[in-house]
Amino acid sequence: MKSFLRDINYGIIIRIIGFLLIIEGFFMLTSIPFAWKHCGASCFAMLISAVITILSGSIAWIMNNKAKKLVGKREGYIIVTFSWITISLFGALPFYISGYIPSFTDAFFETMSGFTTTGASILRDVEALPRDLLYWRSITQWLGGMGIIVLSVAILPILGIGGMQLFMAEMPGVTYDKLHPRITSTAKRLWGIYVLLTAVQVLLLWLGEMSFFDAVCHSFTTMATGGFSTQNESIAAYGSFSQYVIIVFMFLAGTNFTLHYFALHGQIKKVFQNEEFRIYFYLTAIATIIITAGLTYFSHLQGLDDAFRNALFTVVSILTTTGFATDNYLNWPGLLWMIIFVLMFIGGSAGSTGGGMKVIRQLLLFKNSWMELRRSIHPNAVLPVKYNQKSVPQEIIYKLMAFFLMYILVFASGTILLSFLGLDFETSVGASITCLGNIGPGIGMVGPADNFGFMSDAAKWLLSFMMMLGRLELFTVLILFSPYFWKR
Amino acid sequence: MKSFLRDINYGIIIRIIGFLLIIEGFFMLTSIPFAWKHCGASCFAMLISAVITILSGSIAWIMNNKAKKLVGKREGYIIVTFSWITISLFGALPFYISGYIPSFTDAFFETMSGFTTTGASILRDVEALPRDLLYWRSITQWLGGMGIIVLSVAILPILGIGGMQLFMAEMPGVTYDKLHPRITSTAKRLWGIYVLLTAVQVLLLWLGEMSFFDAVCHSFTTMATGGFSTQNESIAAYGSFSQYVIIVFMFLAGTNFTLHYFALHGQIKKVFQNEEFRIYFYLTAIATIIITAGLTYFSHLQGLDDAFRNALFTVVSILTTTGFATDNYLNWPGLLWMIIFVLMFIGGSAGSTGGGMKVIRQLLLFKNSWMELRRSIHPNAVLPVKYNQKSVPQEIIYKLMAFFLMYILVFASGTILLSFLGLDFETSVGASITCLGNIGPGIGMVGPADNFGFMSDAAKWLLSFMMMLGRLELFTVLILFSPYFWKR
Repeated sequence: MKSFLRDINYGIIIRIIGFLLIIEGFFMLTSIPFAWKHCGASCFAMLISAVITILSGSIAWIMNNKAKKLVGKREGYIIVTFSWITISLFGALPFYISGYIPSFTDAFFETMSGFTTTGASILRDVEALPRDLLYWRSITQWLGGMGIIVLSVAILPILGIGGMQLFMAEMPGVTYDKLHPRITSTAKRLWGIYVLLTAVQVLLLWLGEMSFFDAVCHSFTTMATGGFSTQNESIAAYGSFSQYVIIVFMFLAGTNFTLHYFALHGQIKKVFQNEEFRIYFYLTAIATIIITAGLTYFSHLQGLDDAFRNALFTVVSILTTTGFATDNYLNWPGLLWMIIFVLMFIGGSAGSTGGGMKVIRQLLLFKNSWMELRRSIHPNAVLPVKYNQKSVPQEIIYKLMAFFLMYILVFASGTILLSFLGLDFETSVGASITCLGNIGPGIGMVGPADNFGFMSDAAKWLLSFMMMLGRLELFTVLILFSPYFWKR
Repeated sequence: MKSFLRDINYGIIIRIIGFLLIIEGFFMLTSIPFAWKHCGASCFAMLISAVITILSGSIAWIMNNKAKKLVGKREGYIIVTFSWITISLFGALPFYISGYIPSFTDAFFETMSGFTTTGASILRDVEALPRDLLYWRSITQWLGGMGIIVLSVAILPILGIGGMQLFMAEMPGVTYDKLHPRITSTAKRLWGIYVLLTAVQVLLLWLGEMSFFDAVCHSFTTMATGGFSTQNESIAAYGSFSQYVIIVFMFLAGTNFTLHYFALHGQIKKVFQNEEFRIYFYLTAIATIIITAGLTYFSHLQGLDDAFRNALFTVVSILTTTGFATDNYLNWPGLLWMIIFVLMFIGGSAGSTGGGMKVIRQLLLFKNSWMELRRSIHPNAVLPVKYNQKSVPQEIIYKLMAFFLMYILVFASGTILLSFLGLDFETSVGASITCLGNIGPGIGMVGPADNFGFMSDAAKWLLSFMMMLGRLELFTVLILFSPYFWKR
């Protein structure tokens, strides 16, 4: 509350975003080695973009070096939303300046899709892109994933948003009260896991049939549950070894990173005792079994091994909100892709890089609905929902419900607006949920084999906004639209 | 709570349902005069059905004449759900025995659609039905409407379910504590209004171009917000006078009946002070204006007067969940029928015969979502939602949220199951919401010009169940699936 008694400290906001821009600029430079031998237009565009980004960042940083180091709740909200916007605006430059994505709307959509780890693309032919741009496209997702980790485990809980409050107690080194120095140490630990997992995946993919370049790009976009590929066919371009490796790492990326921390410290038991993880695991298993059975029964084109691999790959890809494809689920019988569609409303685990509403929210809301029936019979009894053997406070359930309601409201509004912009019903539904849930492919005309290039500019800006809304857990962004936020 | 300390009093349950069956049987007999001159197979079927129904009812009634007159909460739940089922089972007999609906599944679907005031039909050619069956079909809706009035204003609030708790204070003669004799007087008053409005509508329609028979049937199904018509073309078969009359009475039927009570007692001001009524009115006005503008702009087939009438008729018909049609909204441009689709998720007012989630629920949930943003900024401030200038207790908001969640869950489950049963995506969505919301027409293959006849038996039973779920406000039915309900 204290921060509301003073004016918003815009100096520190601009300074921090400036700092992030400088980092972004340097990451742009890391893509140049990949174009080494054929440094053409894209390579120069990347250099120019890096210079613009670093310069702009430096100016913002230096101009505000006298800003007070006070970062309160309100500054926190503004920094989170505007850093995603600013970084996507600058991140779009390489695509735009190089001329490979001639429309700035398209370039921004692609970059926002990257930094939000969505994976929806406007590109018809990904393989036409030079290697430095492909690399940049992949690393936007990897950086977005890093951002999300620190956001979901360290910043959002302090702002009182997101499903992670429940984990606070068991999280290594996070405190409630304020932006504590320990955040840095938590973030470092979790980033360590993120980098380690990425490195292992690069190695495994490289041991398989992928080139080093492809292995790096795909590992970046797997661990971020992003889903950008360097191939037009996505992961269908590779054999079953690479596919299984990616399945495993998508699943790991969709798991709460604090569980990885426990696992790496030998506390495997703690992982399997975690209720969200168990449900996440069961959901994957059940959906895979049903779809495998369905694919072998209905489509005589797929043998049992292909059916199993494609089913498992698709289930994990959609549930973790990655969005890679080995098979076009829209060609499956309706009842099978309906399962995939339902998974889009669930999403990964809290504290992972996965998007969507998160398994834990759906689990608790489901438990609460069931409990509500009991409460109707015994209106005077105290019947709390249990999670990991502990009672969940009613105000957390209330917050989850408010989140669910808002999510449905945004999803419905997105669907309606997209219909107004001329998309058919199924495409509107598909595009709305896939962007809000940071998944990538949807249903209708935006399936796994399609892209978002055909849409109007208005639809692309709307969907870019929805990607950001979904990624930042709605309230972080929507709160800025409340006039009360800006009152002193 | 007390009622849980004893066994469920099945005697009184059976006795009450028996009593309702006797009434139903006598209403069946009232349809025979309409077939007077051509008393054929249907007329005999009606007689046989009436005898079976009255006999069964009498046996149930007499066999349990020693049952204790104890009706507690649990008995209340069972009576509500099973009376709708039993009455629909017996009400299907005339259609089935006469052979006009040769499948019992179809006959049951049609009757459940009647008693729940849904209006979804399996009949391809309504006009092929003899007059006594057409009358019976209409009066099922009218009786269902009566049932809903007493249920929503008198029984559900006592069971702690439904959106009416808020009105309790201002309702004439309703008390919280137990099944009070005053219920009878409240029900009588509201039924008086219901009968009065029906009579006035019959007169007006008869003064227009309708025959007395058509005027009676359409008035029955208007006041119940049911939507069964005696014409294949629905209300498009009549001229603009009849259409405007029906618009007015649909709107009245979708209004809280306690407001009619106030209006009839000269307290018009109280009606317009009511927030739910104002929003209901504005929603109708805004949707009509947008659709009228759209229809005149996009489709050069409709002049301004036709466009306005069709827009207003469709908006009122869907918002009140009646389901009559003068124009097929699925032939409108996508952005216009999308508005109609959104209205399906709102529904009529609480305490009316309209179905759906009800305006008041959506209004309060919307207000609460907006307030939630403020609460995120000021986590320690007490910021209640206001309704009619009064603070709404947090537990009522919580109950509304639980209802919304359950509604979305049931809607989604219905959509998924219908997809599994082979329907396409749009039809599954449309059939699910239109049956759950007791509307009648949906989207996809169940639009205003279509019927439900083509569906599999499984789909019809599922949709019959969903009609009942929606009509009885979910919890009343779902609670019976909780094992705790049946424990002593």
